[in-house]
Amino acid sequence: MTSKIRIGIAGYGNLGRGVQSAIAKNPDMELVGVYTRRDPGTLDLAQPAPRFAMDELEQHAGGIDVLILCGGSRSDLPEQGPKFAALFNTVDSFDTHARIPEYFQSVDAPAKAAGKTALISVGWDPGMFSINRVFGEALLPDGQTYTFWGRGLSQGHSDAIRRVPGVAAGVQYTIPSQEAIDRVRAGQRPSLSTREKHQRECFVVLEDGADAQAVREAIVGMEHYFDQYDTTVEFIDEQTLAAEHSNMPHGGFVIRSGNTSDEQKQVIEYSLALGSNPEFTSSVLVAYARAAYRMNQSGITGAQTVYDVAPGLLSPKSPAQLRAELL
Amino acid sequence: MTSKIRIGIAGYGNLGRGVQSAIAKNPDMELVGVYTRRDPGTLDLAQPAPRFAMDELEQHAGGIDVLILCGGSRSDLPEQGPKFAALFNTVDSFDTHARIPEYFQSVDAPAKAAGKTALISVGWDPGMFSINRVFGEALLPDGQTYTFWGRGLSQGHSDAIRRVPGVAAGVQYTIPSQEAIDRVRAGQRPSLSTREKHQRECFVVLEDGADAQAVREAIVGMEHYFDQYDTTVEFIDEQTLAAEHSNMPHGGFVIRSGNTSDEQKQVIEYSLALGSNPEFTSSVLVAYARAAYRMNQSGITGAQTVYDVAPGLLSPKSPAQLRAELL
Repeated sequence: MTSKIRIGIAGYGNLGRGVQSAIAKNPDMELVGVYTRRDPGTLDLAQPAPRFAMDELEQHAGGIDVLILCGGSRSDLPEQGPKFAALFNTVDSFDTHARIPEYFQSVDAPAKAAGKTALISVGWDPGMFSINRVFGEALLPDGQTYTFWGRGLSQGHSDAIRRVPGVAAGVQYTIPSQEAIDRVRAGQRPSLSTREKHQRECFVVLEDGADAQAVREAIVGMEHYFDQYDTTVEFIDEQTLAAEHSNMPHGGFVIRSGNTSDEQKQVIEYSLALGSNPEFTSSVLVAYARAAYRMNQSGITGAQTVYDVAPGLLSPKSPAQLRAELL
Repeated sequence: MTSKIRIGIAGYGNLGRGVQSAIAKNPDMELVGVYTRRDPGTLDLAQPAPRFAMDELEQHAGGIDVLILCGGSRSDLPEQGPKFAALFNTVDSFDTHARIPEYFQSVDAPAKAAGKTALISVGWDPGMFSINRVFGEALLPDGQTYTFWGRGLSQGHSDAIRRVPGVAAGVQYTIPSQEAIDRVRAGQRPSLSTREKHQRECFVVLEDGADAQAVREAIVGMEHYFDQYDTTVEFIDEQTLAAEHSNMPHGGFVIRSGNTSDEQKQVIEYSLALGSNPEFTSSVLVAYARAAYRMNQSGITGAQTVYDVAPGLLSPKSPAQLRAELL
């Protein structure tokens, strides 16, 4: 019997919870520990599992095949990514697109030095959508790629809102423009600005005594996250947030519209309709943990992205089985 | 300046013609020769290019980086695949799904012995659809995958019809069942037989004196191609065929519907709307020729499939450029 891939979870928010749920659906993997910066004893796990303090990770390096980093991109991962890549094979969902090159560099050196594999920016965007943008360009070089998101709650953007001083809680919805979508689907290859494609809607619960206007300005002007969009901020109370905004649906699509000759038009579309964004992202992280483990076993070390992962590495099936059953 | 990837085309039907057109849209590639079993001088090329007899290929082995095999799966590729894999890096679109494992074996040994890379079964199905079936299973292990084709003209099935004795010409359309599609999109995860998902429509021009009933029976009973479907065969004259059936549209989609937890449903959909099936397949072959060349350069030899190709290898852009621009 082949031994299972031993997974550790670093950070237990929505993503960590989703990873735990996803591991249970992959019989070739086992969860060996959930690591938290909180008091481990107080951690309310969805299913029973060993709980540890984040500080204990270093001592457990020999017992974990892949550590899945479930922290946020703004403060957690820039610190944890390089640190843990020196000790473990890692997978993370670093999703600040503009900072991926510097994050890649920061993780690559320690991972290479330690002979570890660090798969960064895994999920659906960056992740599956990124793969489909490359597929689109490569398969239809004479064409145009469009990515639309939503309508959905964005984890990264909601996280960003919650880090603004004066914000007690909040969520952000991304809304694609139907008019823009219709033009792209019709093969018009329109030029669309970031602002023309989506709006962003924020629902925010203020801390007692917070300055609403200052909070609004901090959100709408936030670099990379909101400054290039038309953003609305609505202040609500905690009860309304819990009642109307506790689900985390998302989705969107990547469309490549192109020509293979003057006469022939081709359209490729990849779309996701997600009941839960964090659970889907977590499920992707777990599949890529399998790939990270295999890549490390075959001597591929350092920082890697979804562009470096052959699709077959994601599947528990053997290459021969994949060729016979799914090709 | 980096030198261009030198591509040869073996066989100049619809696919070979499409490959020539696709190479023109990829500035890092050049077409060094079109090889044919016909008299090269009579070959009517879409654009001027060096024309040679298929027999001359062996002498040109040093001047071709990747040979794209544009023959059919039924008779051409089973012979040409193993033969040319001993001399060239190759890419082909072998599409008889049930025979892929044996074809893989037949190509793997000569390619390995020669230190060449043979990428088999490239295109959209097998090919991009196969990749999405693996992605679907790996990302949503608790789920169900559905592949629908059409409405569209199937090259492989039309080719199969034309090889039936008594058939002068003919085309085949694959038609998906709208009822089945609706049930899948609604997330019902229905059990659908091959027969419930699609019908096949054939339009056939008979040779003079051919036995229509014998032709019909030969088609509808053909193993792998038609025996598992409800197939209709309509006999038409050559003029009708030319007037009404000269375009080769196709498309379809791969849907994975699954749960990441009891509460949360997720749907992944990949779809293609193709003005020209052969031109799109050709365009995919050319992108994978780039990958085959790179894999060979990095020492990966033997038979390979789309499952073995990391997405980044398809793009002319560098890994750093992909991370900065598309991730």
